[in-house]
Amino acid sequence: MTEIEDTAWAKKATAKRAALTQSIPPAFRIPADILPPETQLDISRFPAESKWFTAEELEITSTTAPALLERIANKAWSAEDVIKAFCKRAAAAHQLTNCLTEVFFDEAIETAKALDKHLAKTGKTIGPLHGLPISLKDNFNLIGKDSTVGFTSWVNDPQTYNSTLVELLRDAGAVFYVKTNVPTAMMIAETVNNVFGRTVNPLNRALTSGGSSGGESALIVFGGSPLGIGTDIGGSLRIPAACTGIFTLRPSLGRFPTLRARSGLAGQEAVASVNGPMGKTLDDIVLFSKTVVGLEPWMQDPKCLPIPWRSVEPKTKLKIGVIWNDGIVTPTPPVQRALRETVEKLKKAGHEVIDWDASTHKQAVSLIQRMFVADGGKSVRHILKPTDEPFRPEMSAYASASEMGVHDLWQLHLERTDFQKAYLDQWNFHGMDALLGPTTPYASVESGKFKHVGYTGTFNVLDYSAVSFPCGVIANKEVDQYGSDYRPMTETDKEIRDEYNEGLVHGMPVSLQLIARRLEEEKVLAMTKTVLEAL
Amino acid sequence: MTEIEDTAWAKKATAKRAALTQSIPPAFRIPADILPPETQLDISRFPAESKWFTAEELEITSTTAPALLERIANKAWSAEDVIKAFCKRAAAAHQLTNCLTEVFFDEAIETAKALDKHLAKTGKTIGPLHGLPISLKDNFNLIGKDSTVGFTSWVNDPQTYNSTLVELLRDAGAVFYVKTNVPTAMMIAETVNNVFGRTVNPLNRALTSGGSSGGESALIVFGGSPLGIGTDIGGSLRIPAACTGIFTLRPSLGRFPTLRARSGLAGQEAVASVNGPMGKTLDDIVLFSKTVVGLEPWMQDPKCLPIPWRSVEPKTKLKIGVIWNDGIVTPTPPVQRALRETVEKLKKAGHEVIDWDASTHKQAVSLIQRMFVADGGKSVRHILKPTDEPFRPEMSAYASASEMGVHDLWQLHLERTDFQKAYLDQWNFHGMDALLGPTTPYASVESGKFKHVGYTGTFNVLDYSAVSFPCGVIANKEVDQYGSDYRPMTETDKEIRDEYNEGLVHGMPVSLQLIARRLEEEKVLAMTKTVLEAL
Repeated sequence: MTEIEDTAWAKKATAKRAALTQSIPPAFRIPADILPPETQLDISRFPAESKWFTAEELEITSTTAPALLERIANKAWSAEDVIKAFCKRAAAAHQLTNCLTEVFFDEAIETAKALDKHLAKTGKTIGPLHGLPISLKDNFNLIGKDSTVGFTSWVNDPQTYNSTLVELLRDAGAVFYVKTNVPTAMMIAETVNNVFGRTVNPLNRALTSGGSSGGESALIVFGGSPLGIGTDIGGSLRIPAACTGIFTLRPSLGRFPTLRARSGLAGQEAVASVNGPMGKTLDDIVLFSKTVVGLEPWMQDPKCLPIPWRSVEPKTKLKIGVIWNDGIVTPTPPVQRALRETVEKLKKAGHEVIDWDASTHKQAVSLIQRMFVADGGKSVRHILKPTDEPFRPEMSAYASASEMGVHDLWQLHLERTDFQKAYLDQWNFHGMDALLGPTTPYASVESGKFKHVGYTGTFNVLDYSAVSFPCGVIANKEVDQYGSDYRPMTETDKEIRDEYNEGLVHGMPVSLQLIARRLEEEKVLAMTKTVLEAL
Repeated sequence: MTEIEDTAWAKKATAKRAALTQSIPPAFRIPADILPPETQLDISRFPAESKWFTAEELEITSTTAPALLERIANKAWSAEDVIKAFCKRAAAAHQLTNCLTEVFFDEAIETAKALDKHLAKTGKTIGPLHGLPISLKDNFNLIGKDSTVGFTSWVNDPQTYNSTLVELLRDAGAVFYVKTNVPTAMMIAETVNNVFGRTVNPLNRALTSGGSSGGESALIVFGGSPLGIGTDIGGSLRIPAACTGIFTLRPSLGRFPTLRARSGLAGQEAVASVNGPMGKTLDDIVLFSKTVVGLEPWMQDPKCLPIPWRSVEPKTKLKIGVIWNDGIVTPTPPVQRALRETVEKLKKAGHEVIDWDASTHKQAVSLIQRMFVADGGKSVRHILKPTDEPFRPEMSAYASASEMGVHDLWQLHLERTDFQKAYLDQWNFHGMDALLGPTTPYASVESGKFKHVGYTGTFNVLDYSAVSFPCGVIANKEVDQYGSDYRPMTETDKEIRDEYNEGLVHGMPVSLQLIARRLEEEKVLAMTKTVLEAL
């Protein structure tokens, strides 16, 4: 045993991982003879090619959430068949990418059976999500299950209440079956922690699936979940969505409930953490958004706003500002090309596109960094303490921070409000409908090398609504090179350029971000559809 | 000269007061021979009885805001005539109650003349508030005017920008002519500070007009303004409205803009300060609310919510919970009687009335007290410093507080959210439409003796919408006595009982508070109408 393996916290982690492995039923363990070797980086075609899945299992797990609901409601498929297929595919995803933290297939199948019985008996679905499997990021509390949020001290600490969002979804008929991996405290842009280790990208296991909702993104892109919920305080929905080429909506605070989910920075409010959906299609996240707002979450969560789902008349000609770069980091070449090609197509479709001055984003990045460590890392330190788990190296900012006094925090609030006002004025001045920009500088990146959350974090500071979507561009090592005119704008920019590995990201989908004003969820989803139609 | 009069800050204050007095034009100074003696407590009938006002001046200044707008629009009255009448009556109010801080009648008359010219030329009003005089609490910034917020260090510090609400109102056609007095930092429940001294109640000058928007309440109840705007962080709209028997709406954060107004606790966000209207009738505050939301303030203030004004179908039978007491302070006898009589009438009108368990309000009071001084009083101390102005005795909590670290503030946020959730659950459990309770324990009280802001502050912690309205009950020394079964619940309760002076408050109007959920401004206004119809 090494020294680390011998510590109390490492032993807790080892035991938890073993229990997790054991919780996967033998029938869902991939036979050794067909298990892809560790050297095989892209395992995304395993379900289709391994012959381990039946044709029906493949069909079910390739169906969108709205179509699943329809087929369950009209009894083409039973909820039981649907959840079983997703359980199996989720189990495979975990064995290939290490994306799960909790597995409770038996309970899920029981729930599905009860739903089937209800439908058979009454002829009616129990609610708008009747029978839909939904995967949950680890920090959503479920009674009786751990929510470790990557901390060893929270292992074997079954929760005594459900998150409010979980209760709403459950009452609407959703079936829960897995929880998914996160980085420690959900405050790293990749998915790695001392309990479960690292989640990797199913499209290329040398790459990160992003973070903090990177267990979700790996699971969903592999086909192990038709719809998942994650959280976002600096990009934690959008970064993993972009690293895997799936869809997500980062809502403004108040549309979807956040109450009673676990946090690494509990009580931090200077920048809001929000919850949102992740899925393989735009329809999936529209379904979630419309349904959850329709459940009137403001009746349950005091932070939710009584704004019903609003129908939006989509404009045929949009005015879009393009964020070519944020003055801190030049997007890597595949993302640069994705922006160029997307802008060309938008112009061709008749939309008005202008260059957006994003030079103020530096201030947003500075603000969010100070907000995250305003407590001097005390919250994280207190959670680490019971097991003497050390800070991970990615969390060094929390380890070294000094606690701020409340008076200084109030000044930070004022600086943030000034930034919000200046951005709003800039938006009004140009009469924008939306901004288009990188979600991250990457078409994913080698695990351990993700740098710069500025493209997402700025819109957390602003609390704007934003969709990350795959734009159809695929990284291509033949063409995606830095130009000879490239000059690094900052040290981080230079590091990202030096670490850029066109061979490694070759073939990866590239995502972009479409941003609307605060509380324009309906509009940003409708505009994403308009943009997709132009591509 | 006494020692105090000789200090730098006292000299600044003396000079500022002298300048204020000078800024009232000679024509609007009350002739010495008709000036009521200081011993005359009720000066509210001075305008009607002194013969110093013309019949038209009296008629104009007795007209509601909606009716004024109509008469200006149809040219029955010019905006100039209207503003002149209010300038004169406001000047009288100030001379009798010390309610103003800034007077700029000439500018106001010029503005009104320009509006008249516009109407004559175009046949159209400039906006929905064309020609309406609106008085502003001192902390609303106007370019070129002081916003002292009661601090001597902010004397002779003309502001360089307008508050966002001020700009919206101005663009809609409002005419500004005065700013009104506040307590130091707006953090005292009466209106007294070291610059301007104390504002008194026009209905009885031995009593307070409440605070912190107590310059407004004195001015409005005297007839010197048809509509005023104030602020509320713990009761600062509702307490002065209740002390004078006028109407106000404390909105939830996000309906009316708060941006760029001056604060004594700038950047404090754990409990939100909000802005709202004050007026003599319910129609006045409905007019303001509907108009301001119609101006889409979310396009200007990043904290405003894109919720348009919603039409509410008023329920004919309401379910109302009654707050008889909050477990801390028994309302004084006139307020007890007002509650009893109002409840009787509501029942008679067919509404369902239940007793509301307000025993948890203690926690809200504890929360708000800790939030206000979380910076250890640093914000106030920093503002006092340049002139070495001492803390007023009413601000001793700020003088003696220790600064909290951000980690502890985050725990306070969590405690507040738990309180909000428990209250929401209690509300849902009983299926309430509204709560009815005291606005304060008093039908006003002798200056210097206001204690306990718990009846209002609880709803700031909850961010609920609330109206304070005069319920028609008038304090009566013959019947308003503590019962023999009275037992003090707390030390404060006992002090209030000991200081209760039935003779002094005899004849004062009693107000109550009607409370709805968060962001139910339309509903709480509609329900107030329903309640008034039952009275």
